[in-house]
Amino acid sequence: MNNKISDCEMLSAGLHEECGVFGMYDLSGKDVASSVYYGLFALQHRGQESCGITVSDTKGPKRKVSTHKDMGLVHEVFTKETLEQMKGNIGVGHVRYSTAGASVRENAQPLILNYVKGTLGLVHNGNLINANELRHDLEYTGTIFQTTIDSEVIAYHIARERLNTDRVEDAVLRACRKLKGAYSLIVMSPRKLIGARDPFGFKPLCIGKRDHAYIITSETCALETIDAEFVRDVLSGEVVTISKDGTIHSDTSLCISQEKEARCIFEYIYFARPDSYIDGVSVYASRIRAGQFLAMDSYVEADLVVGVPESGNAAALGYAMQSGIPYGNAFVKNGYVGRTFIKPKQSNRESAVRVKLNVLKEAVNGKRIIILNP
Amino acid sequence: MNNKISDCEMLSAGLHEECGVFGMYDLSGKDVASSVYYGLFALQHRGQESCGITVSDTKGPKRKVSTHKDMGLVHEVFTKETLEQMKGNIGVGHVRYSTAGASVRENAQPLILNYVKGTLGLVHNGNLINANELRHDLEYTGTIFQTTIDSEVIAYHIARERLNTDRVEDAVLRACRKLKGAYSLIVMSPRKLIGARDPFGFKPLCIGKRDHAYIITSETCALETIDAEFVRDVLSGEVVTISKDGTIHSDTSLCISQEKEARCIFEYIYFARPDSYIDGVSVYASRIRAGQFLAMDSYVEADLVVGVPESGNAAALGYAMQSGIPYGNAFVKNGYVGRTFIKPKQSNRESAVRVKLNVLKEAVNGKRIIILNP
Amino acid sequence: MNNKISDCEMLSAGLHEECGVFGMYDLSGKDVASSVYYGLFALQHRGQESCGITVSDTKGPKRKVSTHKDMGLVHEVFTKETLEQMKGNIGVGHVRYSTAGASVRENAQPLILNYVKGTLGLVHNGNLINANELRHDLEYTGTIFQTTIDSEVIAYHIARERLNTDRVEDAVLRACRKLKGAYSLIVMSPRKLIGARDPFGFKPLCIGKRDHAYIITSETCALETIDAEFVRDVLSGEVVTISKDGTIHSDTSLCISQEKEARCIFEYIYFARPDSYIDGVSVYASRIRAGQFLAMDSYVEADLVVGVPESGNAAALGYAMQSGIPYGNAFVKNGYVGRTFIKPKQSNRESAVRVKLNVLKEAVNGKRIIILNP
Amino acid sequence: MNNKISDCEMLSAGLHEECGVFGMYDLSGKDVASSVYYGLFALQHRGQESCGITVSDTKGPKRKVSTHKDMGLVHEVFTKETLEQMKGNIGVGHVRYSTAGASVRENAQPLILNYVKGTLGLVHNGNLINANELRHDLEYTGTIFQTTIDSEVIAYHIARERLNTDRVEDAVLRACRKLKGAYSLIVMSPRKLIGARDPFGFKPLCIGKRDHAYIITSETCALETIDAEFVRDVLSGEVVTISKDGTIHSDTSLCISQEKEARCIFEYIYFARPDSYIDGVSVYASRIRAGQFLAMDSYVEADLVVGVPESGNAAALGYAMQSGIPYGNAFVKNGYVGRTFIKPKQSNRESAVRVKLNVLKEAVNGKRIIILNP
Repeated sequence: MNNKISDCEMLSAGLHEECGVFGMYDLSGKDVASSVYYGLFALQHRGQESCGITVSDTKGPKRKVSTHKDMGLVHEVFTKETLEQMKGNIGVGHVRYSTAGASVRENAQPLILNYVKGTLGLVHNGNLINANELRHDLEYTGTIFQTTIDSEVIAYHIARERLNTDRVEDAVLRACRKLKGAYSLIVMSPRKLIGARDPFGFKPLCIGKRDHAYIITSETCALETIDAEFVRDVLSGEVVTISKDGTIHSDTSLCISQEKEARCIFEYIYFARPDSYIDGVSVYASRIRAGQFLAMDSYVEADLVVGVPESGNAAALGYAMQSGIPYGNAFVKNGYVGRTFIKPKQSNRESAVRVKLNVLKEAVNGKRIIILNP
Repeated sequence: MNNKISDCEMLSAGLHEECGVFGMYDLSGKDVASSVYYGLFALQHRGQESCGITVSDTKGPKRKVSTHKDMGLVHEVFTKETLEQMKGNIGVGHVRYSTAGASVRENAQPLILNYVKGTLGLVHNGNLINANELRHDLEYTGTIFQTTIDSEVIAYHIARERLNTDRVEDAVLRACRKLKGAYSLIVMSPRKLIGARDPFGFKPLCIGKRDHAYIITSETCALETIDAEFVRDVLSGEVVTISKDGTIHSDTSLCISQEKEARCIFEYIYFARPDSYIDGVSVYASRIRAGQFLAMDSYVEADLVVGVPESGNAAALGYAMQSGIPYGNAFVKNGYVGRTFIKPKQSNRESAVRVKLNVLKEAVNGKRIIILNP
Repeated sequence: MNNKISDCEMLSAGLHEECGVFGMYDLSGKDVASSVYYGLFALQHRGQESCGITVSDTKGPKRKVSTHKDMGLVHEVFTKETLEQMKGNIGVGHVRYSTAGASVRENAQPLILNYVKGTLGLVHNGNLINANELRHDLEYTGTIFQTTIDSEVIAYHIARERLNTDRVEDAVLRACRKLKGAYSLIVMSPRKLIGARDPFGFKPLCIGKRDHAYIITSETCALETIDAEFVRDVLSGEVVTISKDGTIHSDTSLCISQEKEARCIFEYIYFARPDSYIDGVSVYASRIRAGQFLAMDSYVEADLVVGVPESGNAAALGYAMQSGIPYGNAFVKNGYVGRTFIKPKQSNRESAVRVKLNVLKEAVNGKRIIILNP
Repeated sequence: MNNKISDCEMLSAGLHEECGVFGMYDLSGKDVASSVYYGLFALQHRGQESCGITVSDTKGPKRKVSTHKDMGLVHEVFTKETLEQMKGNIGVGHVRYSTAGASVRENAQPLILNYVKGTLGLVHNGNLINANELRHDLEYTGTIFQTTIDSEVIAYHIARERLNTDRVEDAVLRACRKLKGAYSLIVMSPRKLIGARDPFGFKPLCIGKRDHAYIITSETCALETIDAEFVRDVLSGEVVTISKDGTIHSDTSLCISQEKEARCIFEYIYFARPDSYIDGVSVYASRIRAGQFLAMDSYVEADLVVGVPESGNAAALGYAMQSGIPYGNAFVKNGYVGRTFIKPKQSNRESAVRVKLNVLKEAVNGKRIIILNP
């Protein structure tokens, strides 16, 4: 890999896609669907376009794989009945962000593959910069695609490599060697749950535990929501494998020197939830710090420091702390604005309709105000 | 009226019901349905159970009255198609709060009455303490009810009085004389828009204007959303009538001495939106003040002052200002928790699932914290 | 009543409206909602626009009245959950035909009234010719209407009369005296189920029984569907009252001489289901007879007699029997054409799209064919 | 191919699946989505579980492929808006029957493949007897499946062969050589529409034409519905290719001697619509003939011959013609019984609820009746 060239590309690769992934494996055999559901719910801020869950059973000879995925928010796509019908002690889930591209149901994840070694489920957060090359390579050797998402390219590489390897985690590793760009992915094989994070570590991925169940997911807030404890972050470049004996096997052969690692800065300042910790750093604290640094760097006199809700508030608080300028609120957010909010035709006069964010005139009138908008 | 006795009753009367009302009359003849929709959207925090809009035309001999109402949020109940089919330059709308009682579609407002003088539309926010007596009086003289809501009692009294009066606003006034309790109501007659507020002024009601259109509504934030200017509050006990010539006729014969007036304090501390002004007082400023008073009254030493979002934040800010204790955030709210959030069966271990409000451990660890929860 | 004049009007009165009504009273206290549902399902051909069910309990001091009604077919409007929540041993149901007029949810039946004597539920099939006069009379004495349907006029008259009578059935009788036109109606009072049919007997109404339950309904096919036995038809002009002791009280004071009676001929040839019996006459047999009479009256030479499905088939069979010309099929009906069938824009060439009824060329090519289309 | 052994298997192969396929290619460039929709609507009797349409454009360098498919009836799955957004002059559609197996959205057709030569759309009616072997062969050479339907096996074989052939129709032919069992399939390539029928000709497939558009579909009734003229049946074993110049290229290298051909007899007696012609034989006439033969073979004395609607009626008519026993109707079908008809819990007494088919007692009482139920 020519890092000189690809570093820039790499950095930009992480920005296009924001998704949330969640995998869970209950070694004692309990159903995981409802926990995956809660986990996705906590990750909803990472993707509102589509979502899905796949579960299966690691026990018995006849595994049944159940998948439910659709366009919509987590609580819209899943009903109590749907979740209760999804039986199995291993599962993966995904929430997807609405990018400009093809927003169709076929592109929703998890992606499920049936091949000679059984069934694989895969969820992916990130953006490959060599996806087109990899896709073409596969196509010219006869591979057929049914979606337009990068995840299918990754999955097909894993399935191919699996034919030449003894263990599915080795196939994941071999496939990862070919990927360039940002990826945090979770693979569910018939009896293993595998997590992999790109060598730069662009996108977050962490491990949690609750009783006899292990979890791999994008953010620690998803662990808290299901009352699981945080075990550790997946390392940049690491492939972790959770097997039925409860061991977490780690392969670090893709890791690069720590100085070369890179983070998607938008995770800290915008994407992630403030109560999450990424690679040991509190998102909330990092936003406070960012505000403090800004105040040191670029102090201006003002009467009030305010943030644009919600992600700007912590930075504003940091700026206020550092500068001594009072912190305040300047905006009211209408919490009922949803994806389905309709916009009937209006006369020109009404084009300025402000339904989402209103200014608190009382708070701002006659004041010099610093606004932090991430 | 025996105020000695009824004052207490009165105060409690206002608390049971929280609804939002919006009426609009465009003198130049433009359709108002989409503006009523936006207005209700801004009032959504006042009621999430059901909503509805009625529009009609003040011009021409053949008035058609269109009503659409159902259980659900404003953006769920109305589609672009529905709104575009609702033609008319006068209209009223309503959002209703889910009380413990009968939550059925028949109880949704506006209430529409057809009687000898034409059609009346009525929306109502409040709670009568003599509703049962009034209902019985009507029943014993042959009146038949189709719902169980107070608004029907008010509407039938208006319609009855209308037979003995020349003007519909006089019928409204006569009906109001019989009502005890909290009410802010808007009546849409074939050619007039009438607003009435109870003599104590428990519930807010204000007047706005945009070009040739007049608006009567619960909160000023609804005026801002449609870019209308605030004209004035409806007085406690006042009946205002907007006619086709654009005059606002005021009848204050029900007004009582200002010292006797009473406000529903929950409007300021909980119900209303912080960017609204009620009777000239900023809701946001009143919350700041409440926090300041609390700090003066009940100062305790602490490291941080936090509010329970969203309504507690302003009070916490006030407490922080007054006390000098730093203001901070301690909670992350999952903005995707909706009415339809399902709760699948969980193992006991998971009963503590925290989907709505998560604590920002980073912000609170090891600190003495004052929490303001309205 | 001036019969000379009104007879003509009367005859036309019956044609405008086609609805289905079903009432049930289980004296042993069992829930009736699911039987009412099945009954309405059997009457679906009488109205596809809207439907509704109201049930209540005749026992105990605290009666709860549950109503569910909406636009749509019976199986669309009701879910298993809805039906299971509707508790009560007395109930009425209605299916409504889509007439040209106001097709809105507010006009769906049953109509529920709350008045001093309790709650009344009413369902109605027919068309009054003096509805406007009756409505005006009520309006000028202060009555307020919430719908535009005749049923509300009838219900309000019943409620008014109830204040001056000891028994609800007498109020129904007094109200019926004022009605001119076609009506078959069922009234559900707190402890009685009452059926009334206009003196001419335009619209069908019959009585059935299953175990300890009594049924009043439009057609006998609804009795068969719930495995109830036919007891007898309600007489023209009769008011029947089913009380908790299981007696069927009959009041025939509105009956006129049998020669003056009239039937809505469309019931026999078009509206009713062929397996129903109306006033002792099989609808199927009457259609066969009609075809036979036609063959006697208007014989023409032909190779084949066919009916336009479904209601034309029996008449064609009768014509074939009488004439000796073979009976056959000439049309294939697409059973999936529903109310929701969409019609996207087409080029002119496709304007002839035949989605509903296709001709069986094989059956008709080169043949002289008699088509019976009711 | 060992026909001795496989013939039996072959015969049974055709029975498991009943689907409908429709393909259209407008050479003049007009959109075909609405015609495909009407075609599927006419084929709805062949499958009520799921349906789907894929369209694309044969012109210009940038082809966009639009697919919409879901569980449900044609008029439920497609809205006017959906159809209007589906632009393209070539398309395929499918209706699927609910078999006992996996009834999930992922199995709905058309199946869309992206591979090195572009995009293929495929719809399939039939049942392969060597699907498992073919699937295994592909899996062991690295192929990955995303569904469990035979169509995916066929499609992957076509895509594989395409890498070694110059023309897509040759790839279809090569793939067909490997298939054993019943198949009528339509393949949509970037610039061609290809139809293929198995050598035995189990399942119907025919060609139609309207102006500059060619159609390949399961039954002639779909041609009539869109006002297209019948051109000819696809031969057993034939692969037909419609290209942009309007030629229909035929490859018959898979055809076997006509005596060996076999038909799925259920098409004539049950599956197909009576107004369709299969291989030159009227389905309606074949049912009449079947009834006539039955009367010759197995005459019994009776008063009436009746059919179980709808498919039994024609046979009953044939029996009546031949035997001289009068034909009649004995059943009334409730046309509103749909897939969504709910069945609430009933008391035992009601277990006999007859909602779908009622007996015409008037027609059958006291009579000896011959019932023909296919």
